[in-house]
Amino acid sequence: MQEALKEAAKAFDAGEIPVGAIVVCQNKIIARAHNQTEMLTDATAHAEMLAITAAANYLGSKYLNDCTLYVTLEPCAMCAGALHWTQIGRVVFGASDTQRGYRLWQQPLLHTKTAVTFGIDEKACQHLVLEFFKRLREK
Amino acid sequence: MQEALKEAAKAFDAGEIPVGAIVVCQNKIIARAHNQTEMLTDATAHAEMLAITAAANYLGSKYLNDCTLYVTLEPCAMCAGALHWTQIGRVVFGASDTQRGYRLWQQPLLHTKTAVTFGIDEKACQHLVLEFFKRLREK
Repeated sequence: MQEALKEAAKAFDAGEIPVGAIVVCQNKIIARAHNQTEMLTDATAHAEMLAITAAANYLGSKYLNDCTLYVTLEPCAMCAGALHWTQIGRVVFGASDTQRGYRLWQQPLLHTKTAVTFGIDEKACQHLVLEFFKRLREK
Repeated sequence: MQEALKEAAKAFDAGEIPVGAIVVCQNKIIARAHNQTEMLTDATAHAEMLAITAAANYLGSKYLNDCTLYVTLEPCAMCAGALHWTQIGRVVFGASDTQRGYRLWQQPLLHTKTAVTFGIDEKACQHLVLEFFKRLREK
């Protein structure tokens, strides 16, 4: 999660909502990404989406069964839907997203095969997002 | 929808699940795409996702409020979640997807601002998908 936090910090510095993600396969980081919706002018350019695409590209496979995605914030419905298609083995997220997190939907969005862990480095993950919106309001 | 069907036919010819999408803004087609999950080895490369990215790129805006997406098959949860972020004005789809369509989720996935029409050219849209899977089974 520390590596995902580094990615989130890059987003923060770039004026993006600070979310970072990495994909790990066999103890190796095979993809890293941060939210780039502003820079790419693309609402789909969430950290998770970019990390999924990069990981699939690295492995040469649409499926990420043996991978773990670490992401600083709970994925939204779009990202959870994308993770479903990859059949990813595990998702680990830091802070919960009570506004747009995928767990707001009662019917499952992730694949039944996907294990989920959350609350890892929660405070640090949450702090970045809170600080981002605090500064935005002060502008 | 005829233009979206042309895109779906391209996917069919390329051995991809035949789904096509176009984005229209002020009576002009500003983006067209077909499913490219196999060619790009990327589970996120659905026709809608590629069309959203292309349309946002064309307009220089993350938001597609004044746009209509025409897609041959009902969007999945990922694509509906993506369409939510764009606040797209209208979504028109042809065939329903009873396996993975976004309407399987009882809680809304699309934005409340988004108007939805479906069943347009339904038979032609559905035919392509059925034919694709029929041929796949025969291989």
